[in-house]
Amino acid sequence: MLPKLPDFSLSFEQQFDLQKYQQLVKDIPRPELENLFIQVIRLKMAQENLAKGVIKDCLIQQADPNSFNTT
Amino acid sequence: MLPKLPDFSLSFEQQFDLQKYQQLVKDIPRPELENLFIQVIRLKMAQENLAKGVIKDCLIQQADPNSFNTT
Repeated sequence: MLPKLPDFSLSFEQQFDLQKYQQLVKDIPRPELENLFIQVIRLKMAQENLAKGVIKDCLIQQADPNSFNTT
Repeated sequence: MLPKLPDFSLSFEQQFDLQKYQQLVKDIPRPELENLFIQVIRLKMAQENLAKGVIKDCLIQQADPNSFNTT
């Protein structure tokens, strides 16, 4: 019933960025690192909500293709 | 042209979890915190790719509503 899950493996650019962050993180002072850690989790949560909303809208639209145009 | 962006503000539960993490993070040893920080960024990237894929599929389906069923 559900559409195939899109590929979510990391691109080479993302893998490169991750390796860069792995080096940079060593120089971040502890209080700043704690703060950044929380901020990334906050972003991840917001992104998750956004993705869930988009998926919901998409499923609603599959059920009724005119639902976006009538509101 | 684009559908309205879904609400991505944090739920009360997520805000509560964040406050909990803000306390817990203080007790995580530095090397472990660095590792967790990178892991969260990695997860965020994968989630971003997944969301982009879902949005793309959704837009393709809007252009051709039969595209999911014919493959």
